[in-house]
Amino acid sequence: MLARFGVSIEPELLEKFDRLIAERGYKNRSEAIRDLIRERLVQQEWEKGIEETVGTVTIVYDHHVRELTTMLTELQHQHHNSILATLHIHLDTHHCLEVLAIRGKPDAIRQVAHRLISLRGVKHGKLVMTSTGTHL
Amino acid sequence: MLARFGVSIEPELLEKFDRLIAERGYKNRSEAIRDLIRERLVQQEWEKGIEETVGTVTIVYDHHVRELTTMLTELQHQHHNSILATLHIHLDTHHCLEVLAIRGKPDAIRQVAHRLISLRGVKHGKLVMTSTGTHL
Amino acid sequence: MLARFGVSIEPELLEKFDRLIAERGYKNRSEAIRDLIRERLVQQEWEKGIEETVGTVTIVYDHHVRELTTMLTELQHQHHNSILATLHIHLDTHHCLEVLAIRGKPDAIRQVAHRLISLRGVKHGKLVMTSTGTHL
Amino acid sequence: MLARFGVSIEPELLEKFDRLIAERGYKNRSEAIRDLIRERLVQQEWEKGIEETVGTVTIVYDHHVRELTTMLTELQHQHHNSILATLHIHLDTHHCLEVLAIRGKPDAIRQVAHRLISLRGVKHGKLVMTSTGTHL
Repeated sequence: MLARFGVSIEPELLEKFDRLIAERGYKNRSEAIRDLIRERLVQQEWEKGIEETVGTVTIVYDHHVRELTTMLTELQHQHHNSILATLHIHLDTHHCLEVLAIRGKPDAIRQVAHRLISLRGVKHGKLVMTSTGTHL
Repeated sequence: MLARFGVSIEPELLEKFDRLIAERGYKNRSEAIRDLIRERLVQQEWEKGIEETVGTVTIVYDHHVRELTTMLTELQHQHHNSILATLHIHLDTHHCLEVLAIRGKPDAIRQVAHRLISLRGVKHGKLVMTSTGTHL
Repeated sequence: MLARFGVSIEPELLEKFDRLIAERGYKNRSEAIRDLIRERLVQQEWEKGIEETVGTVTIVYDHHVRELTTMLTELQHQHHNSILATLHIHLDTHHCLEVLAIRGKPDAIRQVAHRLISLRGVKHGKLVMTSTGTHL
Repeated sequence: MLARFGVSIEPELLEKFDRLIAERGYKNRSEAIRDLIRERLVQQEWEKGIEETVGTVTIVYDHHVRELTTMLTELQHQHHNSILATLHIHLDTHHCLEVLAIRGKPDAIRQVAHRLISLRGVKHGKLVMTSTGTHL
């Protein structure tokens, strides 16, 4: 069962919001509003840092850099309990894109991300702080 | 006159939202929702980059660095048409905080911000992309 | 062959930087500095929006939401030219985490991300703007 | 006295960095590198949340909204110990831009920012997390 609440808003602001969500592909306002709310809650969850959650780390690296693949593999096995799975893509003869999904407390996820991104040969890396989806 | 629309939402999600906005000091849900909407619209305005808007630049600098105050003054006068006003605070014997309010197209505001932040002696700087408030 | 340049810096600032990079797991300053530089270049590449690049989209969704999986599949096939691969994880009986790697111009990647994130049942989504790694 | 350290880097990456910093207006590489380092340190200081620091809050509001100016004044006086100064600009007949400089622990600064931004009539607000400049 869904709950329902009303929002009072200036007509001009509503019109602008309707245009924005049409561009983004939303079917209706409720879904767009729920997304705004959920995004804020996910932010807060990561700031508080108490609950177990999920993150993904995207790295781009040059697999020709000496010992990098060995170190990436080793690092991932050290954290095999929290690393759920990995996606690997061969971008060109040199470059790989790898995405790791990690489960754990925010600080633990951040630490694995830092270790991966700081390796020599890893040219770029970013952590996405998302959620297990439960109660969201 | 205000318009009004309804939002369908899972009861559990609504409860979490209510807790979040109470912590932030919101009086009611409508105001919190309008803030989420307006923030998204301001983001989009800066991405599109077409309309005249407003930004503030916060810099922290050491006024003992040779010629820095002269250069800051000169740079600000070169852009006197777009710099609306400046706030200056003496943080300690060395450090000043200065906030500049700038009006213009997004790219023009960004350029003034880059010039200020790149000066030697400016230790930290950040641009806030906000809005003229019209139709928001 | 590597180039080399010197950086002048206040001893106290260098000390703080050394502590920061040790915490992050960096082996040496050069690698940490190169990471800071590359991150700034990737940001700029996405702001300029001209070159083909790579992004990943992380979404968390409830696969029980009616027609969501059908729509996700269809949407991905419409963009099969740009979606390089997908990683899927079953978080619990309801929730899935999916990561898509997408290649294309920044705006095209953003559009696919918006479409995915705006679907009903997708509870959270984030775009990582990364790079093909070439010349980085 | 300045310290000095060397950075090894791929020539192509250095060339790209040189172009980037020229566009931003940097006089030399050292200043650009120090800015990257200081920005990271300020981020870390706000994440750790232990030391007293400085932030600025930019708000845009409609001064015609009933009791808003009274509430803004009252709120600021409640925090007169931490609010260092305020800049006020009349954007048009309705809209004001106000920037407040706040000193305190990160969480205390965030709380004042939340209170201000959540007021009805405040259409947009952003917190800049900066620094006292000491040891930066």
